[in-house]
Amino acid sequence: MTRSPRLQRLLDELTWEEKLGQLQIVFRPRLEDAAQLIRDGIGSVFWPRSATAVNALQQVAVEETRLGIPVLVGLDVIHGQRTIAPVPLAQAASFDPLLVEQLAHLAAAEARSGGVTWTFSPMVDVSRDPRWGRVVEGFGEDVHLAATMGRAMVRGYQGSDLSSPDSIAATAKHYVAYGQPEGGRDYNAVDVSEHRLRNVYLEPFRAVVDEGAASVMASFNTVAGRPMHAHHGLLTGVLKDEWGFGGVVVGDADGVRNLVPHGIAEDVADAVRQAFASGLDVEMGGAPSDVEPAVLAALDPARIDDAVARVLGLKEALGLFDRPYVDEAAEITAPADASRAAVRRAAARSCVLLKNDGTLPLRTPQRVLLTGPYAESDDHLGAWTQSFAAPARTIADELRTRWREIDVRVVPGVGFLDDDGSGIAGVVGAAQDAELVLLFVGEPSALSGEAASRSDLRLPGRQEELIRAVAATGVPFVVVLENGRPLVVSDWIDHAPAVLEAWHGGTEAAAAIVDVLLGEEDPAGRLPMSFPRSVGQIPVHYAHENTGRPATTGGAMTAEFEDIGLHGPDNVKDKYTSKYLDLDLGPQFAFGHGSGYASFAHGLPRISHAERAGRDIDAGSGVSIAVDVTNTSDRAGDEVVQLYVHDLIASIAAPVRRLIAFERRTLEPGETATFEFAVGHGQLGFWTTVPTAPPTGATLLVEPGVFRFHIGGSLDRTQPVELRVT
Amino acid sequence: MTRSPRLQRLLDELTWEEKLGQLQIVFRPRLEDAAQLIRDGIGSVFWPRSATAVNALQQVAVEETRLGIPVLVGLDVIHGQRTIAPVPLAQAASFDPLLVEQLAHLAAAEARSGGVTWTFSPMVDVSRDPRWGRVVEGFGEDVHLAATMGRAMVRGYQGSDLSSPDSIAATAKHYVAYGQPEGGRDYNAVDVSEHRLRNVYLEPFRAVVDEGAASVMASFNTVAGRPMHAHHGLLTGVLKDEWGFGGVVVGDADGVRNLVPHGIAEDVADAVRQAFASGLDVEMGGAPSDVEPAVLAALDPARIDDAVARVLGLKEALGLFDRPYVDEAAEITAPADASRAAVRRAAARSCVLLKNDGTLPLRTPQRVLLTGPYAESDDHLGAWTQSFAAPARTIADELRTRWREIDVRVVPGVGFLDDDGSGIAGVVGAAQDAELVLLFVGEPSALSGEAASRSDLRLPGRQEELIRAVAATGVPFVVVLENGRPLVVSDWIDHAPAVLEAWHGGTEAAAAIVDVLLGEEDPAGRLPMSFPRSVGQIPVHYAHENTGRPATTGGAMTAEFEDIGLHGPDNVKDKYTSKYLDLDLGPQFAFGHGSGYASFAHGLPRISHAERAGRDIDAGSGVSIAVDVTNTSDRAGDEVVQLYVHDLIASIAAPVRRLIAFERRTLEPGETATFEFAVGHGQLGFWTTVPTAPPTGATLLVEPGVFRFHIGGSLDRTQPVELRVT
Repeated sequence: MTRSPRLQRLLDELTWEEKLGQLQIVFRPRLEDAAQLIRDGIGSVFWPRSATAVNALQQVAVEETRLGIPVLVGLDVIHGQRTIAPVPLAQAASFDPLLVEQLAHLAAAEARSGGVTWTFSPMVDVSRDPRWGRVVEGFGEDVHLAATMGRAMVRGYQGSDLSSPDSIAATAKHYVAYGQPEGGRDYNAVDVSEHRLRNVYLEPFRAVVDEGAASVMASFNTVAGRPMHAHHGLLTGVLKDEWGFGGVVVGDADGVRNLVPHGIAEDVADAVRQAFASGLDVEMGGAPSDVEPAVLAALDPARIDDAVARVLGLKEALGLFDRPYVDEAAEITAPADASRAAVRRAAARSCVLLKNDGTLPLRTPQRVLLTGPYAESDDHLGAWTQSFAAPARTIADELRTRWREIDVRVVPGVGFLDDDGSGIAGVVGAAQDAELVLLFVGEPSALSGEAASRSDLRLPGRQEELIRAVAATGVPFVVVLENGRPLVVSDWIDHAPAVLEAWHGGTEAAAAIVDVLLGEEDPAGRLPMSFPRSVGQIPVHYAHENTGRPATTGGAMTAEFEDIGLHGPDNVKDKYTSKYLDLDLGPQFAFGHGSGYASFAHGLPRISHAERAGRDIDAGSGVSIAVDVTNTSDRAGDEVVQLYVHDLIASIAAPVRRLIAFERRTLEPGETATFEFAVGHGQLGFWTTVPTAPPTGATLLVEPGVFRFHIGGSLDRTQPVELRVT
Repeated sequence: MTRSPRLQRLLDELTWEEKLGQLQIVFRPRLEDAAQLIRDGIGSVFWPRSATAVNALQQVAVEETRLGIPVLVGLDVIHGQRTIAPVPLAQAASFDPLLVEQLAHLAAAEARSGGVTWTFSPMVDVSRDPRWGRVVEGFGEDVHLAATMGRAMVRGYQGSDLSSPDSIAATAKHYVAYGQPEGGRDYNAVDVSEHRLRNVYLEPFRAVVDEGAASVMASFNTVAGRPMHAHHGLLTGVLKDEWGFGGVVVGDADGVRNLVPHGIAEDVADAVRQAFASGLDVEMGGAPSDVEPAVLAALDPARIDDAVARVLGLKEALGLFDRPYVDEAAEITAPADASRAAVRRAAARSCVLLKNDGTLPLRTPQRVLLTGPYAESDDHLGAWTQSFAAPARTIADELRTRWREIDVRVVPGVGFLDDDGSGIAGVVGAAQDAELVLLFVGEPSALSGEAASRSDLRLPGRQEELIRAVAATGVPFVVVLENGRPLVVSDWIDHAPAVLEAWHGGTEAAAAIVDVLLGEEDPAGRLPMSFPRSVGQIPVHYAHENTGRPATTGGAMTAEFEDIGLHGPDNVKDKYTSKYLDLDLGPQFAFGHGSGYASFAHGLPRISHAERAGRDIDAGSGVSIAVDVTNTSDRAGDEVVQLYVHDLIASIAAPVRRLIAFERRTLEPGETATFEFAVGHGQLGFWTTVPTAPPTGATLLVEPGVFRFHIGGSLDRTQPVELRVT
């Protein structure tokens, strides 16, 4: 990497200790503590909660240190700084990358106005285990969706110029495979083959690195026994050498010190040595004083210079050397109206209509009962928001404002978590007086996010009992879910006329939910993760490989014993397939599930070529796949056209479906629009590795044969079209 | 491999078609169909159900085919032929390899007497997902236990001479990693790193190949996307080239044809070509007619000759060329008394006392109620038995016989599976008249085994309700479980005074259970798989890797949100550890859990060397670890001493515990015995791979540092002792 003259000069002038200081970001909530750290040479700090405080710290860095290097100011800006957008999993449900980009830009502008220069977002961990609480921070189970939304978020945070006053440096996290912890227990070991690593977990990181993400965060987990904070093969071999990543690899909080309990480092000094030698550039949560001189002396000076150059390069790209201070008068400390409008629209567009018998959108009733713990809760912000975020309002307050002429009664009935069903009888009584019951249930924000794994994915507390009690009254009702992960809904979903998945929608969640209930917004989002039938079915995701014995029906519990030993499986074929004896096939709701208030008819899909030569595809030629979609309803609405591929015969068992493109578009009543997708080498290939010494990386391979495409508004409403690659 | 003159002559004389016939074993239940297949050149058939029929088929092979090559006669003899022993998972629970060897020898003698020459057992798949029904066929979650029991079973089947009239060829299955299907759904994809493959899944196969297993069966699953029936790297690269396996690699039933639905073969002919080219020697369930001449011509003749030589070599080792016929008069068609006694003792020694407040062994009561669906069931044989197996008796019959003077009343109350609790009230009434209730509950045999995955691991039907109802009466009771996998017992276990895990115990299960209940046998087995607290906790096994944030307490459900963004995790350490919010740590019962009726005191463990040089260990020197154990009770009983190791600091995160040795021994009251274990390179090392091209395999590496040993009667009753390797 070429270094600017300024960077080279600084590298030449920095002492060994000063260099190591540049490679640390440390938690110090008190301003004077942070200032002292900067005097001592630390290169990055966490946000001190105001533009004024940031300027004070930068002043220490610029005026009180020998070389006057400004500091990076980091903060977990995950889905908004002051104006809170829907949680990232909800944003993924919008299937609207432009929306995600806008929300990230809004967050960046607010954060940078206060002096934040570096966020630890987006999370692009493909996440297929809903027990894991951090699924809320990412974009769900799909590789392409995660890559697309990750790119959008990076563009939104960083803009075209990191030195702009509304840009911050993005961090792609958690590198890598953090989304597959064993048992869904946060921080747990990850075991994964290179095949799956390349084709699933690494792929969104490759995309966001290609998009220009300034930083990548190492993950807490092991990969095949080696903790990522000390994984040379992946941090240096793949990320830096293969992909040419020129940005900063930052550790997660205490991730370097955690190498000691991992059992691969003898002490903190050994941990630091291993981490930097493996390719880490910045330790988070450590301190220079941790590191014994003898161990530091063992570090390769060229490796340390490389790390320092990356940190200084980021400071330079952010314009900090030229403009270390922010305009304190311009700090945004509360949501602007336009910002509120943006996150409100986003929260509505993130909603997924899980089922609807026509109860939604609501016709104006006279007497409405609001029940469930979310009716009067303001816990809509979701995981990973800070105390200075703009709070949300309650749905009850919002509905009372919007429906001044209607008798809105509120009886929460049960709490989120407590095992107290004594209020349910009161709800039943009130429901019998109502024309309509709106049930607001879910998981409070604290049940998802970091260190928030659950082994039971049903609604907590007595909420399911509340739903069943309301259902038993016969009064029409709607269930609105707010949660940070897929839930198990099988014990009650069949009783509910309409169910809206609203996630944790942020500062304007209440208004957005009411917008959707009243039909002012179209809840045409799609699930970014499958909802399992039961927790015993995990993992269940759409892009699974075929087996040699695929099932066509679910199983049956029986005590009858079949004797196959002498006959082979031929005589009992239905039994000998891949399934559970006690469950129907597939998830309760699959990835991509959902539909808005409008309805659509799809024409037959068209492909530009029925056959193409593999060498032409390798050289950049592709095909175009198109479908005409007509809004057949009497209202404007959104369709989300999804394009999946199945590589029918390959040297590696391919996923039975793999999303390669999608588009969400609004169509007026009667309007017909053509959705068209370009498909080429990048969409058709899979990463294959042939072992070499030293490893030289993977190849994206398109094998000859038939590729079957499935295109439609959800996985259960697709039409096929084929391409033969010769 | 050197070939005998006879083999070389046959190889020279066999036509291409005849060779391919030798590479097939085909299901044909009707004798005349099988005879015709042999005339057509097929080399192996399934057992035709009698010695007479086998001789008839061998006569066709010897007299009616051009070269007179006898056939291999295959059969799934899994835990007995006529006299059924406990299921393999139960045998593993005995922690008694000699017992396993004896049972396999008994099965081999019965099977060979009827002309069977080839069994498809043992299964040595390390199995850590109890949803998977085939856990019943193997030895559980632990590598060392599976390897040890696999070796014992191979010795028992094969003896010292395969041509002996009481020996059959063993098949180690399912190669490889079949024990980790995604979601526990049988046949499902397996994704695993080479690290875990080498250290967990391959290791028991390496052991049984070293023990001389005649055959290895390819598994149905993919490994990292490639189906095992066409996995050259593992079938040829590791098994044959690295390990020098000279036996027969056989496919599983239809496993080659299943390559078509897997999506890696275009048609059956392509599947056959890929399978043989990858290293398969015998296709199971195919037929020569499947294979088009053009595809066969594409096969490498040397590869086919190698496969044929392996098949003929096995026939030669079995003595079939010299003695193709069995002595029909000597066929064993019913259990001998000694055989019954052997499996009865085995079933008792397989029992695990999950908990006991002193209710067991039973003092002679006057009025006893037997309840639960197993009280009057004869379904004790377990998965993978055939219709010609010797049936079991019911526990009610057995108890009535043994307790002639006692008032034994039987009210089953509920069925195994049906959702009918109407009989529970009758049980409660009868219980109130009894001094003691014996509850016999479990899973019928059909709920485990092949294609028998469950997503819910609680007792099926209304059995849990029955237990709770009996508990509510206050009458003392004992729960006896029979099942083929770990169950979730958390909803009732705390109410039960004593719980005996009896598994599916085979032909003499009823007598063995009564032996244990009455204290005539000591139920000192240990769990070979952990029992999870809930299905949402899977996988949970003792030999997990440490994380960087290990938990010391379970989690708590709370709606309180903690703001860590600016502080780092330091202020909320207890939260930020690897666990679930809604479960206590660890499984309900861990691997190795159990204790018999006696009690034992352990002295301090001793180690022969506190320190050894790594080069000495590499060269074959080791250490000895010993502990003195005293039977402190007034009855003879068995202690199972278990030795675990933890490699404290290594280049790869090591398992927190890893079993490396165990011994079960009977001690008289007051007796003190020394248990001593030799520990060396094989116990301390882990398999490490450095990529090379072409791959040259793995190295068993002992790294310098401290190894901490834990020795005791179960994981929660161990004492440490350390070794420093320099």
